[in-house]
Amino acid sequence: MTTISAVETQDVRFPTSLELDGSDAVNVDPDYSAAYVRLIAENGEEGHGLVFTLGRGNEVIISAMQSCAQRLIGQDLDALLGDLGAASKRLIHDSQMRWLGPEKGVSHMAAGGLVNALWDLAARRAGLPLWRYLAQLPAEEIVAAIDFTHISDALSPDEALEILRAGEEGKAQRIEQLEAEGYPAYTTSPGWLGYSDEKMLRLSQQAVAEGFDLIKLKVGGDVESDRRRLRLIREALGEDIKVAIDANQRWDVPEAIEWLNQLQEYSPWWIEEPTSTDDILGHAAIRQAIAPMKVATGEAVHNRIIFKQLLQAGAIDIMQIDSTRVAGVNENLANLLLAKKFGVPVCPHAGGVGLCELVQHFSFFDYAAVSGTQENRYIEFVDHLHEHFTEPVVIRNARYQAPQQPGTGAQMHAESRTRWSFPHGEGWQQVADRAAVTRTG
Amino acid sequence: MTTISAVETQDVRFPTSLELDGSDAVNVDPDYSAAYVRLIAENGEEGHGLVFTLGRGNEVIISAMQSCAQRLIGQDLDALLGDLGAASKRLIHDSQMRWLGPEKGVSHMAAGGLVNALWDLAARRAGLPLWRYLAQLPAEEIVAAIDFTHISDALSPDEALEILRAGEEGKAQRIEQLEAEGYPAYTTSPGWLGYSDEKMLRLSQQAVAEGFDLIKLKVGGDVESDRRRLRLIREALGEDIKVAIDANQRWDVPEAIEWLNQLQEYSPWWIEEPTSTDDILGHAAIRQAIAPMKVATGEAVHNRIIFKQLLQAGAIDIMQIDSTRVAGVNENLANLLLAKKFGVPVCPHAGGVGLCELVQHFSFFDYAAVSGTQENRYIEFVDHLHEHFTEPVVIRNARYQAPQQPGTGAQMHAESRTRWSFPHGEGWQQVADRAAVTRTG
Repeated sequence: MTTISAVETQDVRFPTSLELDGSDAVNVDPDYSAAYVRLIAENGEEGHGLVFTLGRGNEVIISAMQSCAQRLIGQDLDALLGDLGAASKRLIHDSQMRWLGPEKGVSHMAAGGLVNALWDLAARRAGLPLWRYLAQLPAEEIVAAIDFTHISDALSPDEALEILRAGEEGKAQRIEQLEAEGYPAYTTSPGWLGYSDEKMLRLSQQAVAEGFDLIKLKVGGDVESDRRRLRLIREALGEDIKVAIDANQRWDVPEAIEWLNQLQEYSPWWIEEPTSTDDILGHAAIRQAIAPMKVATGEAVHNRIIFKQLLQAGAIDIMQIDSTRVAGVNENLANLLLAKKFGVPVCPHAGGVGLCELVQHFSFFDYAAVSGTQENRYIEFVDHLHEHFTEPVVIRNARYQAPQQPGTGAQMHAESRTRWSFPHGEGWQQVADRAAVTRTG
Repeated sequence: MTTISAVETQDVRFPTSLELDGSDAVNVDPDYSAAYVRLIAENGEEGHGLVFTLGRGNEVIISAMQSCAQRLIGQDLDALLGDLGAASKRLIHDSQMRWLGPEKGVSHMAAGGLVNALWDLAARRAGLPLWRYLAQLPAEEIVAAIDFTHISDALSPDEALEILRAGEEGKAQRIEQLEAEGYPAYTTSPGWLGYSDEKMLRLSQQAVAEGFDLIKLKVGGDVESDRRRLRLIREALGEDIKVAIDANQRWDVPEAIEWLNQLQEYSPWWIEEPTSTDDILGHAAIRQAIAPMKVATGEAVHNRIIFKQLLQAGAIDIMQIDSTRVAGVNENLANLLLAKKFGVPVCPHAGGVGLCELVQHFSFFDYAAVSGTQENRYIEFVDHLHEHFTEPVVIRNARYQAPQQPGTGAQMHAESRTRWSFPHGEGWQQVADRAAVTRTG
């Protein structure tokens, strides 16, 4: 028997707000950050996890992780990994901490970081990248990992089992295909609000040259500027390239409808986060009013219960799961199965720091074992900060190449974590020194 | 000009899990706790606020409060109090921290604690208890304090203004009436799941003798026991006493409907939290299936956007606002006006520690200036921990008596805060010592 002997956390932040990379109508100055966690077993095995944040408040996630970690330290690792459904409930449903959510916000994200670190341990033990690890689990074990509480009216364990059993047909071939050809990506890199028209066009044309056929632009600053940017993109790229737009929850419902109808002539493929992601009825009203433009949402959807309703209400055309918003792998398995049940494509949110590395596993697994299709499906790609990970994502011909290293993809180089530890890491000291020079210079 | 010179936090917890007070089907061992905050101005003025939690994780709220407080320290107090709408947005919509919610969970509750401390300062300056302070503000100032973002499709600033202007008629008389007669209370004290039938009946009869005509029982453990407890209550109290029941989100939608239909013969007045409070469509389905039993929810509703939808979807008969779940006074003003717009009575959640002291102000204000009626309206009352506050609530003839002291009611005795500081306060040292004796004895 080996137990979890330590849970180490690190507050890792990158000074991305110094550039305007990552800027949108709502998130104006993000410092892409990771509340990083490392589970260490007595026998030396390790599991890594992270929660993505925008900088300030990263330490609050760390505080919640440390609280939650008390429920892991000293526990039998074999027992935890032998029943990851029970282990995740243990972390999410602490009888006192659940008041802080329940199942939302800081406490839920922190629990998810620890849950993911357990899956990282499990996949490493098996010597498989997460997607391959999931794809070889018996359907019953996947179902046992899922908490059906508050979603059973839309998806029962039996229905989930049926979906996974149907997914077994052709799975081996699909895995081979994924290993050979990868999975489609789309890119957000050209479209940040802070970029000049010239930079946006140059990066868009470059993306198309690299093979991307879906590009995303941030919108929601002002409607005239959105119209100009969309017109320029259409003039430069023609009608065959899909252009998605993203408002980051900027609008109220009537405003969203009015604004989006002024963009219709440029045929945006989807509008992402037109309003609060808490607003299920609002998304449904917007979708009805702006068809055929698709509605996408999910990076801020805090749990499977909101996704369930977005699907029940016919409020979304595209479901955008996020790897560190919900409570880890288990809840994202529920999300994938809900999407399959309702016939809605999943196009994961990525970018930030580590999100591409983490979330790709869900799309690979989905193709291998759940939906079995790549139609209208893409993983977001943003070309930031990949160099800090032990297995940075590889994009070839505008496709994510199948990750190969054992684990979930969360492991960041120790050197990067040390250098960008906030606020005392060497990188941050240099930022502070430069700022001091600017102020006095 | 005076500035905010310090923001002090304290992690105050009470060992209530040692008794079974406060136990229900989901919250089995709460240690009622307060993440307590004190704003201190250069000139010595103070504002107090707190966020209620169940124990573990209280320190996570504190961590978020400390982060958020950086946006107050050194700020001009007059400017903050002169525009509490702007001040609350400043705290809630930090461009980096909003990722942790947005507007939900730990970060939202922590911001709310600080917002409430600012209102405490404002009301103290005016020498008025919060409800009187609110009731004398011009309608335009109330409206200016509210963030209509993501609710304007259901309630516009103009509609809010209209409601408040209509509320001005008869306001002075209603304030007099509140000062003389108070506001109806209901009691949850008899109904905790951990109590024996005998204790439940004794406390219920005592409550009726004290004048209460609405009593609440926790349900959701097992249906036979719920039926037995309801039958005993009905036999003891007759048909004229209203009995509400509370499942604390214990059920999925189909289970809720089946379970509740087995309790119909005892005519529960409302079922509270039959399922996840994130599940707007689920509440609507349950409400439709169990009429005429009313559906109530709100203590875990994380913001005005969820309340908006519960009202739009016809999912609730009773709206239960909470004083420390949402982002403070401003957001609860939005909630009261939404309820009025949709004609749904507000019966606030209270209990825990300090929630009665805080939330009563909203019902008093609602009667004085918003709905102007007490029909089907009650404030929850639980007789716990009031002695720690400088102005404990007063219940007379089963009615809350109007609070008189300037401020929001959040101020806890310094001695209580010190004694129950976690984990090193004297009270907790004694608990630890007793536990050690029990273990070795």
